[in-house]
Amino acid sequence: MTDSPTARLLLSCPDRTGLVARVADFVWKLNGNIVHADQHTDSEAGVFFQRVEFTLDEVPMGRHELADRFARLADECSMEWKLSFSDEIPRVAILVSKFGHCLYDLLARWSAGQLSCDVVAIISNWPDHADTARHFGVPYHEFPVNPETRAEQERAVLDILTHVGVDLVVLARYMQILGEPLIEAFRGRIINIHHSFLPAFKGGHPYAQAHVRGVKLIGATAHYATEDLDEGPIIDQGVTAVSHRDSVSDLVLKGRDLETVVLARAVRAHLAGRVLVYGHKTVVFD
Amino acid sequence: MTDSPTARLLLSCPDRTGLVARVADFVWKLNGNIVHADQHTDSEAGVFFQRVEFTLDEVPMGRHELADRFARLADECSMEWKLSFSDEIPRVAILVSKFGHCLYDLLARWSAGQLSCDVVAIISNWPDHADTARHFGVPYHEFPVNPETRAEQERAVLDILTHVGVDLVVLARYMQILGEPLIEAFRGRIINIHHSFLPAFKGGHPYAQAHVRGVKLIGATAHYATEDLDEGPIIDQGVTAVSHRDSVSDLVLKGRDLETVVLARAVRAHLAGRVLVYGHKTVVFD
Amino acid sequence: MTDSPTARLLLSCPDRTGLVARVADFVWKLNGNIVHADQHTDSEAGVFFQRVEFTLDEVPMGRHELADRFARLADECSMEWKLSFSDEIPRVAILVSKFGHCLYDLLARWSAGQLSCDVVAIISNWPDHADTARHFGVPYHEFPVNPETRAEQERAVLDILTHVGVDLVVLARYMQILGEPLIEAFRGRIINIHHSFLPAFKGGHPYAQAHVRGVKLIGATAHYATEDLDEGPIIDQGVTAVSHRDSVSDLVLKGRDLETVVLARAVRAHLAGRVLVYGHKTVVFD
Amino acid sequence: MTDSPTARLLLSCPDRTGLVARVADFVWKLNGNIVHADQHTDSEAGVFFQRVEFTLDEVPMGRHELADRFARLADECSMEWKLSFSDEIPRVAILVSKFGHCLYDLLARWSAGQLSCDVVAIISNWPDHADTARHFGVPYHEFPVNPETRAEQERAVLDILTHVGVDLVVLARYMQILGEPLIEAFRGRIINIHHSFLPAFKGGHPYAQAHVRGVKLIGATAHYATEDLDEGPIIDQGVTAVSHRDSVSDLVLKGRDLETVVLARAVRAHLAGRVLVYGHKTVVFD
Repeated sequence: MTDSPTARLLLSCPDRTGLVARVADFVWKLNGNIVHADQHTDSEAGVFFQRVEFTLDEVPMGRHELADRFARLADECSMEWKLSFSDEIPRVAILVSKFGHCLYDLLARWSAGQLSCDVVAIISNWPDHADTARHFGVPYHEFPVNPETRAEQERAVLDILTHVGVDLVVLARYMQILGEPLIEAFRGRIINIHHSFLPAFKGGHPYAQAHVRGVKLIGATAHYATEDLDEGPIIDQGVTAVSHRDSVSDLVLKGRDLETVVLARAVRAHLAGRVLVYGHKTVVFD
Repeated sequence: MTDSPTARLLLSCPDRTGLVARVADFVWKLNGNIVHADQHTDSEAGVFFQRVEFTLDEVPMGRHELADRFARLADECSMEWKLSFSDEIPRVAILVSKFGHCLYDLLARWSAGQLSCDVVAIISNWPDHADTARHFGVPYHEFPVNPETRAEQERAVLDILTHVGVDLVVLARYMQILGEPLIEAFRGRIINIHHSFLPAFKGGHPYAQAHVRGVKLIGATAHYATEDLDEGPIIDQGVTAVSHRDSVSDLVLKGRDLETVVLARAVRAHLAGRVLVYGHKTVVFD
Repeated sequence: MTDSPTARLLLSCPDRTGLVARVADFVWKLNGNIVHADQHTDSEAGVFFQRVEFTLDEVPMGRHELADRFARLADECSMEWKLSFSDEIPRVAILVSKFGHCLYDLLARWSAGQLSCDVVAIISNWPDHADTARHFGVPYHEFPVNPETRAEQERAVLDILTHVGVDLVVLARYMQILGEPLIEAFRGRIINIHHSFLPAFKGGHPYAQAHVRGVKLIGATAHYATEDLDEGPIIDQGVTAVSHRDSVSDLVLKGRDLETVVLARAVRAHLAGRVLVYGHKTVVFD
Repeated sequence: MTDSPTARLLLSCPDRTGLVARVADFVWKLNGNIVHADQHTDSEAGVFFQRVEFTLDEVPMGRHELADRFARLADECSMEWKLSFSDEIPRVAILVSKFGHCLYDLLARWSAGQLSCDVVAIISNWPDHADTARHFGVPYHEFPVNPETRAEQERAVLDILTHVGVDLVVLARYMQILGEPLIEAFRGRIINIHHSFLPAFKGGHPYAQAHVRGVKLIGATAHYATEDLDEGPIIDQGVTAVSHRDSVSDLVLKGRDLETVVLARAVRAHLAGRVLVYGHKTVVFD
């Protein structure tokens, strides 16, 4: 745990000899000290992934120049890359509908100093959480919605997100389907949570179906939102044991506990710059 | 852990007042002592389930008479029921194809005295496990199969099962679809194991699909075999964590470890008379 | 999930033939319908345990008379027993010091309707959570403490608990040792949470020791408080995986998440009348 | 999964700027391609750890020269290091007493191609597993022992290990304390498995104590054997849930299942050159 700020590079590129050496050499030449590096090669796809975190104390230049210099190396190696800094605090908006369990959990962690971000807006299609927002000192934006006003409501949501300046959108049980403009504006920066089952159940009442089938495990999946509902790259998953004693409402309750934990883990991983999206999946560095 | 034999009643019936009292009273009048009782009421369906295990030392009659007497009570309450005795050792056949991990695990547990059954036959469509069968002293029956001989092969398998006298059939990664006659002959007495995913994947290469999607958990489900392949009542499920570092073959390997454990748990629960099938699901008493 | 109130009997007594029958018969004669019954026999100790939950709709008498009648049966069988009713809402006090993660989680669950209790007091030796208490509408009692004022402070805490009328005390990371009077006044009704390790570490900085030893799992244990600090009957336990990448502060953070979940499970089990204390241990019915 | 052999470097040294760059550069200059690299810095202790795996196809020199060259870099950086090659098959001896569950599991995995090693000897103080050894085609060495012959027996065991040429010793529930000569001869190359509890229990019958205390979880720990019995660097740990329904013998049974799985995971990690011992702990790379 270094207290002085660090730089964090997330990169992917076609695999070739010498990539680790070139990146490490780049950092060394700048007088940076690598405090964490992790890499992965998808040998079937021939793609190289890396996360490198290094100290900035002795680096004799500003952050823009640092980025410019790395851009040259990145070009040579056809890298996609992202550079972030540990003292940049991401601005987060939480979207929520009726169920407040994930919202509460995130706010409690945030106020306990466990989430390195600023929660700058809570947005809901219901008034229910206004008081909670006030307690935590976060502005609450209520945008009611009905089938006719969906497009308009989403435009208002997008306006707020843009106006406030948001880096990450967390769908903490936000039960509205997002339209393409919002998805597009925050691609790879919207995290959603939903229940998961083995086997999967189609249709509107999965907990009821899971109950009929007598499943012994229920699950939750946190993923980036994409146009394909609930099909975006998976960040984290969890399961919990259930039995014949659990009624449908018990399943729902256990599902909520799980959603809370899995969503928080996913948000933490994203905030720490540990998640790299790639095709339909993610590389989540430790 | 009583060493003298116990009787185990598994029953289900329409729920009504006094069921627990009547069953308990029945046992008491016989001088039986209830060492374990567990019940469950599905209040939506209005069905009552119970498992009662009681001592026989002081019961002044034979097992047939005991069953006859209980039949009268069962009739009055429209019960479906099964009476078994802890010193009756079920006869088990294990069916296996190429992959021997589940077979091995079951035989190792059995030879270590952890499965209270007699393994009386190992049946395979391949010769691969003959040597293993010999080591554990279990007759090995090889019935090769190809698309043309499927019906005939299954008839031969069914003949052996009948001839040897089998109470439970364990499909320890037996990669053949079972026909209706076999399913029918052993309904509720065939346990199968298969992989499970969140989300589920259709088609022939689920591990490859899970890899593409970047799942963080893979699962296994043990269930009773029914005509609907892999859709029978679930007995047990398990999951294990995976990451982007796992290749498809790593996923397969981790999946096998999981199948082994989950199948063994399901077989143990069945052998202890703790599983009651009901609709599409099971009640698995502790 | 029945909506009409139920009675819940928790009992233990020397094991003998006919106990299940007598209790079930008692309920039947009253026109109660048993919706859940679970029993356990510790055959080594010769002790019988049971939890019976039954409907009251058709029971033709008041609750006091019900209890009186059962008392007669209980006497005959030398039972220890407790009768509670699902519509009696226990009054809960939460004691907390600096760390608010367990407090927050319990309040969030409570306000979401997941804990069937009234949280009637939050007591702390610090002012930190007054604002949270106000948000949830729970009176906050601050009693600062130092080594000299310990006895006096505890007396004040005990006075409040008595004055407010409390059924259950939850130590949600309350870092003060409780004296005998408080323990005595709420024996079997104080739930504490603390970290646990494999192997265990003695002394003041267990997380630091766990880090030095390179443990791969850390745990949390919820138990009833007794005079022997952290040695009371265990209600629930959990573990979470850690690795060499986790610093001491990461371990602490993961430990907190775990404490939160394990404490909530234990409180829920207690509130549902599912925990029976017996010797140094508990029987936790499903 | 590359099929051509790879080199695997495990190293640790005082942390300083440029270490990753120098190692990566070393590999690059040799025309090696890094297929996996993982590093860790213990910032409190100021120690750097790394595992680097790279291809050898294009490396224009033999393995000895490769090692000699790396030795120069290692000297400059005061590294402790180990170089191994994926096509070198470690020679493994399994030591076992009465309980065969871990032995069986390891042999089954090995014969299924899941453990990349040669099992070259099974050594026991009992004759019980001779038949199993024969089945798997592994020489069985029986060395009975009693208190008087302990030193002599251990000398015989050490002789066999030396004579056969063994790289790794697995104590698969070998219930004899190892003396210093054996520990010394195979330091960091003896893996042991033992049960673990939260809380820990001292003395001879931990399962019985765990039962009295009513624990809800039991655990197992795989570690390198050192002179301090059961206190060596931890490689892997696992837990499993238990309840009041589990008798002492149930706990023992569940403990065995867990030991089997945890030991296998630890052996696999060691064989893949993923474990680096450091002080009292390990770094286990993914």
